[in-house]
Amino acid sequence: MKILILGGDGYLGWPTAMHFSSAGHSVAVVDNFLRRAMATELGAGSLTPIQSLQERVLAWTEVSGRQIVSYVGDLADPAFVDRIFTEFTPDAIVHYGEQPSAPYSMIDRKHAVETQRNNVEGTLNVLFAMRDLAPEAHLVKLGTMGEYGTPDIDIEEGFIEITHKGRSDTLPFPKLPGSMYHLSKVHDSHNIHFACRIWGLRSTDLNQGVVYGIRTDETDLDERLCTRFDYDEVLGTALNRFCVQAVVGYPLTVYGKGGQTRGFLNIIDTLQCVRLAVESPAAAGEFRVFNQFTEQFSVRDLAERVQRVAGAMGINVTVDKVSDPRIEAEEHYYNATHTKLLELGLQPHLLTDEVVAHLIETIQRHKDRILLRPIAPKTKWDPR
Amino acid sequence: MKILILGGDGYLGWPTAMHFSSAGHSVAVVDNFLRRAMATELGAGSLTPIQSLQERVLAWTEVSGRQIVSYVGDLADPAFVDRIFTEFTPDAIVHYGEQPSAPYSMIDRKHAVETQRNNVEGTLNVLFAMRDLAPEAHLVKLGTMGEYGTPDIDIEEGFIEITHKGRSDTLPFPKLPGSMYHLSKVHDSHNIHFACRIWGLRSTDLNQGVVYGIRTDETDLDERLCTRFDYDEVLGTALNRFCVQAVVGYPLTVYGKGGQTRGFLNIIDTLQCVRLAVESPAAAGEFRVFNQFTEQFSVRDLAERVQRVAGAMGINVTVDKVSDPRIEAEEHYYNATHTKLLELGLQPHLLTDEVVAHLIETIQRHKDRILLRPIAPKTKWDPR
Repeated sequence: MKILILGGDGYLGWPTAMHFSSAGHSVAVVDNFLRRAMATELGAGSLTPIQSLQERVLAWTEVSGRQIVSYVGDLADPAFVDRIFTEFTPDAIVHYGEQPSAPYSMIDRKHAVETQRNNVEGTLNVLFAMRDLAPEAHLVKLGTMGEYGTPDIDIEEGFIEITHKGRSDTLPFPKLPGSMYHLSKVHDSHNIHFACRIWGLRSTDLNQGVVYGIRTDETDLDERLCTRFDYDEVLGTALNRFCVQAVVGYPLTVYGKGGQTRGFLNIIDTLQCVRLAVESPAAAGEFRVFNQFTEQFSVRDLAERVQRVAGAMGINVTVDKVSDPRIEAEEHYYNATHTKLLELGLQPHLLTDEVVAHLIETIQRHKDRILLRPIAPKTKWDPR
Repeated sequence: MKILILGGDGYLGWPTAMHFSSAGHSVAVVDNFLRRAMATELGAGSLTPIQSLQERVLAWTEVSGRQIVSYVGDLADPAFVDRIFTEFTPDAIVHYGEQPSAPYSMIDRKHAVETQRNNVEGTLNVLFAMRDLAPEAHLVKLGTMGEYGTPDIDIEEGFIEITHKGRSDTLPFPKLPGSMYHLSKVHDSHNIHFACRIWGLRSTDLNQGVVYGIRTDETDLDERLCTRFDYDEVLGTALNRFCVQAVVGYPLTVYGKGGQTRGFLNIIDTLQCVRLAVESPAAAGEFRVFNQFTEQFSVRDLAERVQRVAGAMGINVTVDKVSDPRIEAEEHYYNATHTKLLELGLQPHLLTDEVVAHLIETIQRHKDRILLRPIAPKTKWDPR
């Protein structure tokens, strides 16, 4: 299949591109280097010494003997998007090409508006390109579990059957997103659902949990193929950040009570889920939603885990319950269904102590690259 | 109270401004004349000979002895928005300032993207201005009943209690919007709800039905105070367009089977509802939703009504069931709750034969201004 990876230079995009290429698919990546620019803006950077996209693509060919085509440009530019679709004629589009950080979207008005514009308009341009140039292609869109928020009922996979006043219908699951970024993903979901209903496009929305980890089969092949690893308060995800804090002797920054519970998954399972979705496409006109995570943890669970595993490695770790910079429920009910990807064949890689230990060891190898200043929480949901 | 009317030069905005001014409130209007530009772009125009905003404001002072302040500019410009909030310090913001047409948003990619950008970013800029400059003000936002689409259960006012797997929660009513414009309103609703939850802002989302009519107490005072009246396929609403078609001897263009059922209300009741919402504001942190319409009709009901009333006036009217240019259910269940505004004191002005006859007479007075070319349906939901 011809697979187009939007955001193919990012944390997940680049490993996904190699994964599909390795499996024998024809792969092209698209990126505007927004994530790299964001890190520079924030005075942060990848723990791992990532190469430029050009160097990555060359190294991949050298190591694997396979080609990955690259397009550099912005999905906000409809002519650029149409040119890619015309030249590459994708069978599947894996769409990671969005501003991916909740705190970044909450910095101020400018960052909020830019996040929604970037994400919503980029996706609209892709939908129109699909309609006009690739109506049979399958859009695999990365959404987030954060679209649902923390309702007081079980979270289903995208839709819920509601019985009300003696009648029933299966309708989109109500959304309570918790940041300007999460809102942008909710907007995308509505736009994509509409495009499937009206134009008969096919799409899978992967409502992904929080991803941890850094190693995949392909990144292990050569140091130059490593993916980025962010650990700062804006771009880093919880477990990754905690492991870095453990290594540098910084207290783990648990926000508030730490009861915030979310779905989590290993980066290896992200690649597996995306591949399962691509290789079993949605039907024409179908908008299907998969909840993409393997386990639920509270932030407190994660901090305790890192503390215990690091302790066994001789690293003394303290936990610092800092005032929550976000506005969110710090203790709440949370139970989210996640069976559809298992039914397609997902083999979960769970968060064992060995996985945490390996993550800590990898971080130790790059310890001299860690920047301390961007780790402490600064971005407040309400700055007043 | 100090009341800021966004989109105060429009079909509903201008009568609303006069209505509040007449009631003794201090009123400012904001407009970038998008609606006038759209009409020009489409080769269409208002049936009524509307004056410029400057002429309207001067005429209003001459007729009523009251002032309406005007700001000309774009809500997409955050500095402009902040300047208005700093100078005028509103107690309430009535937000009509959006691209209001579903067909316009479906013309092509450019119009779709511009609709979502204009509506979503303008509203985001207002929310940030409220947070930073008027945190106690009340946002009365014009949404649309079209946000809900046509689910197979009764539509509630914004929220629905869902019992699921033994637990219950009251959550946002699921949305199935039917155009890029309706999607923009759904995005707004999510963004505003978030701002209320996170920043403690107060907002009322008025999910309005289709408005008909042209006369209000204030427009009746002087010909120069009349509001615009659109009847073309892009900007005109159903009943208004049918009455114009009757007057010019053009068959009423019913789309498909004509079973499409929606909520409707008289422009007089729009003013009444907005005023009720403004004068009984939402609480701090509250996002409340009112379904703003007084009666449900199918498109077929409206066509038959116009045919009958016009017939009694000696006008022979035919009905032409044209192929539906939209993609929508042509026959469906529809039952939407609308009690909250009645509880606040709304006195409905129902669609009597006299109302239709008066509308037809008004159109007859301006018959020489009617442009025929823009009436026939051309904008397709799927142009392929």
